[in-house]
Amino acid sequence: MKTSQGEIKRGHSALSLSTGEIGDLLRKHELRVSILGLGRIGLPTAAVFAEAGARVTGIDVDARVVNQTNAGESRLTDEPGLAPVIKRNVKEGRLSATLKPETVLPDSDFIIICVPTPVDQTKSPDYTAIKAVAHTVGKSLGRGSIVIVESTVGPGVVENTVGPILESESGMKVGVDFGLASCPERSDPGTIMKNMHSVPRIMGCSDAHAGDLVATLYREGLGVEVVKVSSPKTANAVKLTENLFRDVNIALANEFALLYEKFGIDTVEVINACATKYNFVPHYPGAGVGGPCLPSNSYYLIMEGLKVGNIPYLIRLAREVNDRMPDHMVELTSEALNEIGKTVSGARIAVLGIAYKPEVKDIQLTPIEHIIDRLREMHAIVEVYDPMFVGDKVMGLVVHKSVEDAVRGANCVIIGTAHSEFKKIDLSSLAKMTADRAAIVDGRGVFEPADAKRAGFAFRGVGRVASPD
Amino acid sequence: MKTSQGEIKRGHSALSLSTGEIGDLLRKHELRVSILGLGRIGLPTAAVFAEAGARVTGIDVDARVVNQTNAGESRLTDEPGLAPVIKRNVKEGRLSATLKPETVLPDSDFIIICVPTPVDQTKSPDYTAIKAVAHTVGKSLGRGSIVIVESTVGPGVVENTVGPILESESGMKVGVDFGLASCPERSDPGTIMKNMHSVPRIMGCSDAHAGDLVATLYREGLGVEVVKVSSPKTANAVKLTENLFRDVNIALANEFALLYEKFGIDTVEVINACATKYNFVPHYPGAGVGGPCLPSNSYYLIMEGLKVGNIPYLIRLAREVNDRMPDHMVELTSEALNEIGKTVSGARIAVLGIAYKPEVKDIQLTPIEHIIDRLREMHAIVEVYDPMFVGDKVMGLVVHKSVEDAVRGANCVIIGTAHSEFKKIDLSSLAKMTADRAAIVDGRGVFEPADAKRAGFAFRGVGRVASPD
Repeated sequence: MKTSQGEIKRGHSALSLSTGEIGDLLRKHELRVSILGLGRIGLPTAAVFAEAGARVTGIDVDARVVNQTNAGESRLTDEPGLAPVIKRNVKEGRLSATLKPETVLPDSDFIIICVPTPVDQTKSPDYTAIKAVAHTVGKSLGRGSIVIVESTVGPGVVENTVGPILESESGMKVGVDFGLASCPERSDPGTIMKNMHSVPRIMGCSDAHAGDLVATLYREGLGVEVVKVSSPKTANAVKLTENLFRDVNIALANEFALLYEKFGIDTVEVINACATKYNFVPHYPGAGVGGPCLPSNSYYLIMEGLKVGNIPYLIRLAREVNDRMPDHMVELTSEALNEIGKTVSGARIAVLGIAYKPEVKDIQLTPIEHIIDRLREMHAIVEVYDPMFVGDKVMGLVVHKSVEDAVRGANCVIIGTAHSEFKKIDLSSLAKMTADRAAIVDGRGVFEPADAKRAGFAFRGVGRVASPD
Repeated sequence: MKTSQGEIKRGHSALSLSTGEIGDLLRKHELRVSILGLGRIGLPTAAVFAEAGARVTGIDVDARVVNQTNAGESRLTDEPGLAPVIKRNVKEGRLSATLKPETVLPDSDFIIICVPTPVDQTKSPDYTAIKAVAHTVGKSLGRGSIVIVESTVGPGVVENTVGPILESESGMKVGVDFGLASCPERSDPGTIMKNMHSVPRIMGCSDAHAGDLVATLYREGLGVEVVKVSSPKTANAVKLTENLFRDVNIALANEFALLYEKFGIDTVEVINACATKYNFVPHYPGAGVGGPCLPSNSYYLIMEGLKVGNIPYLIRLAREVNDRMPDHMVELTSEALNEIGKTVSGARIAVLGIAYKPEVKDIQLTPIEHIIDRLREMHAIVEVYDPMFVGDKVMGLVVHKSVEDAVRGANCVIIGTAHSEFKKIDLSSLAKMTADRAAIVDGRGVFEPADAKRAGFAFRGVGRVASPD
């Protein structure tokens, strides 16, 4: 596909299009979109752009994922609405997947990067994957293509790391020969297909025309509002700012919870009452914060802060407050067991819910893992149930088939995730399944303390009153 | 008014009423309400309860305030809608004021405490005033009266400090002989008359019947929703939680601002973009946090936390972040002057806005005072204008009559308060009034950096890009 001069020839190049042509090409199935990384974000993104009419190729390093996608199957069973869109678009030839980026990148109008950006064990951002795809993309980049980074990264990483790699590998100039934009995903796992079409996108680009084209792509392809900001780094700052707003406010709720437990005040009652004020937004305390975003995002900003000698210490402290909640859950468990004359050692403890959030099959950085590890170190006998993981072996434990199986004879029941199934548990029925005298430790505000007490349980909950009247 | 047994006899006692009778007595002008403290909250509260039909007596220790109120005048000229309500109700005999609590307290159905609860210089809560009025009220408390604390206090202060003082002074039992409730004010200075009738009240009481009566009083008297919570301490926790939510989120915005200034990212642009996400609430960075509430409220919670060995360190750190913003303003001023070849020493600096918030005549703990002090220590010549304080001598400076008077020949213009008048300033006209080459330091996001640059100013703003293109 390269000419004798080494330049890649294509039917058209994205940068030469007008914004009006984007919609036309979409409808004629002539717009070519490549998506690197078929994970939690990349796969739905590929599906919805194909559904909008683009010719989409998903690129991944995992042959199983590529084969599964080419077979028209969704690897994300917990994303409602995704499976039929994948099936339909694969069948109709608009969506496919490949292990070989060089076969599709040269002809791509838009190249969307959706690889993960985790943190390592020392909480340092790990940009290995995004740097690797930048090299891959740079090697096969066609003149006039537009590269879009959806992955969450620190402000400046697109300009100062991704851009230079693309330039040196391709021998072309960003903003001249190809476009480079940040358009961070803003979806919530479990509701991605809904979010994809409703949450406005924030987009910052290397140059105005490429930015207009990217904005048009998302508007026409996803049907969402696109807010253009001054630069890629501004778009990345927006993504981090909104996620850190959540992380810091959950930390604040946790700080109130730890204090109000000691004051004999119900934190959930307090927060619900606060929510009647026009300028208050409720965040609730809990067993800890997990998932692919919140536990990591602060460190991207801290890393960039360190480079300019300015550590955001409130953000860092909030992270630490949240990271200590699993230990608080262990303390509450120990206290609750103590109330019924038991030690953690030898106690049968049923953990209900291991996913990091309700109705999602995801245990990335779930705080429940630390709780289970600590309890097992203390020689508790831990049983686990989670409706998303039935029969799977997770954290060295086989997940039970039902609440009943997990709690049979338990001295303590821990709520680790607020799955809707647990909210329907009848406490007097639960009391018949557990040991004669049992405890509940609620990490997710699923039960009312008074109800648990009435059903005969010793009760502890994050931020709740231990012995309500 | 005491019988030979020393007990105070009255026509009816609040505790003996049914909730249905509250409205009847209000309409018949037979419900007697005393309000201690005719300040920012007490005076409007007195006015609106009188307007609703109650016979209200305001009690204050300041003869000037008492006389002014009895003359039908409002001491709060910056509260729209208050003056006519005071005038009308004084004229019609439902509202009066006194220096002598003992003349009205024995016959009061409801006694509302609205005294200030500041912090001292070491940031320790100063409960002197509320303890003093508790003694005063206890000495003259009639059987069956209900005492309501609107002042903001730490959770437990009503139960553990106010209650015992009332009991020991009156010889009566709380929850039996008299009622004791917390119903914290939730109004914003400058819009109190509006808030009074629209923001739901949070109420916790010593006993259920008294609680029902208090809830009815506020519902019927103010026409607002009343949310009943488990206890006075819960109500006080709600008030602190909602205010600390604001303080911590402003600190977070300030932390982003300090970082984004270094990254060359516009924090206001970032926050406005974040606000397009459904679960984000915008808070903006600024020159600091002042007023009677936010700079103090954290310390009430910290104080109670210290008593149980649990310091809320995120909340404390947020306070420190906000407390350092005035110093950051001084740094920005020094930088901006440096850009135009000036030292702070000898520079003419016009400070526009000294009030702690827009359109309010209030400089309680205003962050601008620290900025002015520091600049004067560094030998700047400081001129001040604030539309709320024209002609007054404040912080040792006479407040100019207009922007023009204050900025004439200035080397630097500092925006300290986002008064609406300042938002209308035309920057090219401003440039003609100031020195040939001048700087602007915007502490309140009033000007766009690019506009200031275009008008020829060296520009710095909290969280803004110093030299925009």
